[in-house]
Amino acid sequence: MIIILKPGATKKDADEIIRQIAAVGLKPLYLPGTERTVLGAIGDERILGKLHIENHPLVERLSPVLTPYKLVSREIHPRDTVVRIDGVPVGGRHFTVIAGPCAVEDSRQMLLTAQAVKRAGARCLRGGAYKPRTSPYSFQGLGLEGLQILHEVSRTLQMPAVTEVVEVADVTAVERYASAFQVGARNMQNFRLLKAVGQSRKPVILKRGMAASVEDLLLAAEYILSEGNPSVILCERGIRTFETATRYTLDLNAIPHIKQHSHLPVIVDPSHGTGVREYVIPMAKAAVACGADGLLVEVHHNPKEALSDGHQSLDPREFARLMKGLRPYVAAAGRRM
Amino acid sequence: MIIILKPGATKKDADEIIRQIAAVGLKPLYLPGTERTVLGAIGDERILGKLHIENHPLVERLSPVLTPYKLVSREIHPRDTVVRIDGVPVGGRHFTVIAGPCAVEDSRQMLLTAQAVKRAGARCLRGGAYKPRTSPYSFQGLGLEGLQILHEVSRTLQMPAVTEVVEVADVTAVERYASAFQVGARNMQNFRLLKAVGQSRKPVILKRGMAASVEDLLLAAEYILSEGNPSVILCERGIRTFETATRYTLDLNAIPHIKQHSHLPVIVDPSHGTGVREYVIPMAKAAVACGADGLLVEVHHNPKEALSDGHQSLDPREFARLMKGLRPYVAAAGRRM
Amino acid sequence: MIIILKPGATKKDADEIIRQIAAVGLKPLYLPGTERTVLGAIGDERILGKLHIENHPLVERLSPVLTPYKLVSREIHPRDTVVRIDGVPVGGRHFTVIAGPCAVEDSRQMLLTAQAVKRAGARCLRGGAYKPRTSPYSFQGLGLEGLQILHEVSRTLQMPAVTEVVEVADVTAVERYASAFQVGARNMQNFRLLKAVGQSRKPVILKRGMAASVEDLLLAAEYILSEGNPSVILCERGIRTFETATRYTLDLNAIPHIKQHSHLPVIVDPSHGTGVREYVIPMAKAAVACGADGLLVEVHHNPKEALSDGHQSLDPREFARLMKGLRPYVAAAGRRM
Amino acid sequence: MIIILKPGATKKDADEIIRQIAAVGLKPLYLPGTERTVLGAIGDERILGKLHIENHPLVERLSPVLTPYKLVSREIHPRDTVVRIDGVPVGGRHFTVIAGPCAVEDSRQMLLTAQAVKRAGARCLRGGAYKPRTSPYSFQGLGLEGLQILHEVSRTLQMPAVTEVVEVADVTAVERYASAFQVGARNMQNFRLLKAVGQSRKPVILKRGMAASVEDLLLAAEYILSEGNPSVILCERGIRTFETATRYTLDLNAIPHIKQHSHLPVIVDPSHGTGVREYVIPMAKAAVACGADGLLVEVHHNPKEALSDGHQSLDPREFARLMKGLRPYVAAAGRRM
Repeated sequence: MIIILKPGATKKDADEIIRQIAAVGLKPLYLPGTERTVLGAIGDERILGKLHIENHPLVERLSPVLTPYKLVSREIHPRDTVVRIDGVPVGGRHFTVIAGPCAVEDSRQMLLTAQAVKRAGARCLRGGAYKPRTSPYSFQGLGLEGLQILHEVSRTLQMPAVTEVVEVADVTAVERYASAFQVGARNMQNFRLLKAVGQSRKPVILKRGMAASVEDLLLAAEYILSEGNPSVILCERGIRTFETATRYTLDLNAIPHIKQHSHLPVIVDPSHGTGVREYVIPMAKAAVACGADGLLVEVHHNPKEALSDGHQSLDPREFARLMKGLRPYVAAAGRRM
Repeated sequence: MIIILKPGATKKDADEIIRQIAAVGLKPLYLPGTERTVLGAIGDERILGKLHIENHPLVERLSPVLTPYKLVSREIHPRDTVVRIDGVPVGGRHFTVIAGPCAVEDSRQMLLTAQAVKRAGARCLRGGAYKPRTSPYSFQGLGLEGLQILHEVSRTLQMPAVTEVVEVADVTAVERYASAFQVGARNMQNFRLLKAVGQSRKPVILKRGMAASVEDLLLAAEYILSEGNPSVILCERGIRTFETATRYTLDLNAIPHIKQHSHLPVIVDPSHGTGVREYVIPMAKAAVACGADGLLVEVHHNPKEALSDGHQSLDPREFARLMKGLRPYVAAAGRRM
Repeated sequence: MIIILKPGATKKDADEIIRQIAAVGLKPLYLPGTERTVLGAIGDERILGKLHIENHPLVERLSPVLTPYKLVSREIHPRDTVVRIDGVPVGGRHFTVIAGPCAVEDSRQMLLTAQAVKRAGARCLRGGAYKPRTSPYSFQGLGLEGLQILHEVSRTLQMPAVTEVVEVADVTAVERYASAFQVGARNMQNFRLLKAVGQSRKPVILKRGMAASVEDLLLAAEYILSEGNPSVILCERGIRTFETATRYTLDLNAIPHIKQHSHLPVIVDPSHGTGVREYVIPMAKAAVACGADGLLVEVHHNPKEALSDGHQSLDPREFARLMKGLRPYVAAAGRRM
Repeated sequence: MIIILKPGATKKDADEIIRQIAAVGLKPLYLPGTERTVLGAIGDERILGKLHIENHPLVERLSPVLTPYKLVSREIHPRDTVVRIDGVPVGGRHFTVIAGPCAVEDSRQMLLTAQAVKRAGARCLRGGAYKPRTSPYSFQGLGLEGLQILHEVSRTLQMPAVTEVVEVADVTAVERYASAFQVGARNMQNFRLLKAVGQSRKPVILKRGMAASVEDLLLAAEYILSEGNPSVILCERGIRTFETATRYTLDLNAIPHIKQHSHLPVIVDPSHGTGVREYVIPMAKAAVACGADGLLVEVHHNPKEALSDGHQSLDPREFARLMKGLRPYVAAAGRRM
């Protein structure tokens, strides 16, 4: 850790901080400059967090040398992690497509959609039973009944199913009916929920919050890993920027950045990441090209009648076209789908 | 609702949508133009949500005429709402300062800080027992013990206390020990939590999410009001932008905008909104000047030793200076503190 | 154009605006609703700009039906435009790579770098003579001498050269020495400069401003086309967001959006768009995959010694690896390089 | 300067950089840690810019200790600068209101508006002759004729006039007819223009770019000061964020931040900063309260007929109300108007 003191700081201020650094077992450094004094702390600087050096009125700024996360870091764990959702691998040489409706609406919709995505080559099913909606007047999902429908269709078609969990109290039910948890963008920093799914042994797809930096996302994953669950799949789904031509700005830069800094697999959601049906296919291809490990795609057997997000859902024909269009890109990336 | 069709849309497409509009009891309009066809729906357009017209492949864009929220809207409820936290009014002619430490650390810290803020003129106490922290390695709050300490100090000093609730399961405990709920920025779209506090009769301070538009904030408040709890105090606490000179960008534009569109009181958190101790006082004054109904300020009896957010906490002397400095502005605003 | 009036607007207010609409030859519509009055104007609504209806104190909001740009729009010009830079095509079935150093530093650097990028398959050369730099203490470019070096190398290697113009007074010199103008992100809304290059017949690479929406970019291009120069190549180079892991957030969503709305070719600058050497190759591949027409890449024969942007420049070996790695993606996209 | 090396860096890499640091006369530091090596450079680190240490492939990150600007910094020049626009002071104990129309439209409009703002207490006049407009189809200003009208009215009423300059070629004309230059948000990084007004002796109002950090703004001011013109007035006018309820997000946090880091005066433009007439007065008051030195306000004698920005312009009655409303806040701030 590098600690930059304010212009007025004295040797006495520096000594006070140096003593604190030494007291927790790190090696302190004293670097007086011409205009400022700089201090250093050598060792595992993450334990400095307890000292709250940033509170000192004569500390201008801390500049960490190490990343604030550990378990998710590639420095500690250099090889790519492959997470398995009921046997379906995500990460490594695989490119895994998870598809299905935004929300589970009824058995027929779920089954028709699931059959279509399976036929086209998707390996896992998605479908929301608990829907976080901006307006209280929007459809909020079927709840437990939705979970049961999803489970039934998943069993019938032998496709693992992924579904969102929005509340600690629902973790047990979701764990029972689904093959993997999804933690949505709005809950990426619901730390209680992260701890709860961290205590499960089922994989977790962790979506990036719309105002979350990649570092925030990796720290959210660290919550899950630090509770004992190593099976986390990160998901880029767009961030909020000034651009209104698309619903969110899909930040594909995050993919090579995450690959460089973490061993966890990372997938892309081009449906939320664009919010526009016509842009889903090109952005899905871009996701393969920049190194993503898979996709989370919204498909509805009849988008016109979808109860949520129909405008960004593909219909079965479009989804088949997506899967066909992806193949040469997946091959170019040296992966198999 | 105005519905703009894509260039290729035919009269048949228009008729299909017109039939849907008429079927829910609204008056449809057909407005063929030279380059585009535009449709309209007259009446309470919020019921159109169920039709999912935006899903139609030949709909380019919807342009709502009315706001998507109702109960929080000033159109329906023109007079300012005054919310009372155990008798302390927020809204109307009052300017109410709520102050205290970021986190409850122990009885002594809480008591010393509370005495200081009371002496300087704060009307309510704040203090977190459950702390949402970006890193799992940071101090997470004392939990129930923290609630009990807060309660004890609140009773001793006869100051109502506000504290954050992060999870549905904790609503009952927080309701028991505190005078008002705080829903934090990271939980502004935790809709289950909003519904849970909406079923309480205690006031709720709802903080704006760091990627939430003002409309999102008002819709989050609508969740609480629509469950039956009318006592919501909105709180602007900074949004995430490209600027890194401050921790967040305090969006004071939101204050006159909220005042124009909603009857709910709105306060400002200049501590999180700047993240820099030295900017808290000027931004607190700005909050009064642009029409806010109060402040939420972090104060610690000894910020150097604070377990969280010490760098943005005022010490008792600075807080006294803030309160003294506010008086002429509060008077200029025609309010009383 | 749809015009939404404020709640208090009367029939008299509506009539005043309706008269204005009719006076410019458009067909006005009067749509009284239950809570608001809505007006419409049918015809080429762009001429409404002159009426400044938005100024009226009882107008709440305008909602345009048509795009504000015309000449750049695909509605008017459905086929893809292919722009030729001294014979090298950009757009259509081509995928065109333009590469070279950030800044022209001296003849040797320019020649060595140009030979390297030509060998690896780049079709055009880039190199800045006038460098807009955030700090006055940074290297500001060689100016006219830089243009002459670039020209000399371009002639020697028979590769068209592209260079940035930052000022109306330099348009003639740049036109003389280079094959195409580049208008940089910081000058995207330097409208005088846009008009000046619009009066030239040489192609213009127009980079998106870091706070510019895609609509702003298309309107900036409209300035150039409306002066008579049809040869505009748009360039996505990243926007400014809260994310600091990369220098900018490369907004690839913009590529399918531009392709849908405009006939102009669009290329991607993965060097500025990421600011990190290691992310240039994956993001260049993503650019091909989502439909871009080419790349603008920073290459330096020895990045360690580059006078600007060395940290994001590829060396000749890395650039050769980029070009080789691109081939299967370019093939998958049905293009030739 | 602190230099953090990548994990794989060797002693040899460090030595290479250490030699470079020593060669420019700074004192190098070698700080090997347990996981990373950190280097330091003591002295005026701004001269390190020439070494381009960030280009080295084994350098992970530079962390400057000092600000990148010098002449504008309060560290070097601790006392507040007062800039005089033809005798009217901006900065220090003064609170200075500059008001007038967005664009000069004709003599009558300019005179009527100027008389109104003078009567209400404005000290300087504003009015644009060269208007940068997003669309080529919008009113672009009267040019030289506009300058002459502004000059005439300014002389008649004995009020100094401020007007925007958009192009180096116009600097002489603007200098002749106006008392101060305004450099607009879209030209904040038009470095040629900054240098040109830096060679003048007339004051410059420098508006913050909509994607510019405060540091970028201070570096832009540094361009002007480093050319010899010390009379720069900074202007906060809103930045671009995801919030669409207002045209821009007025970043008032910037005011105390600038006051802490620079000696230059800073004013606020609440007209562009909100884009909504009704929010101009509350945000103007907030500007006084957080420490701004003045305002730049759009006023039109008849906003309904304004050729640009009428929706955010005050009419004479509203402006008089603003000025009256400001007085108690200006008094509270210990200033005079």
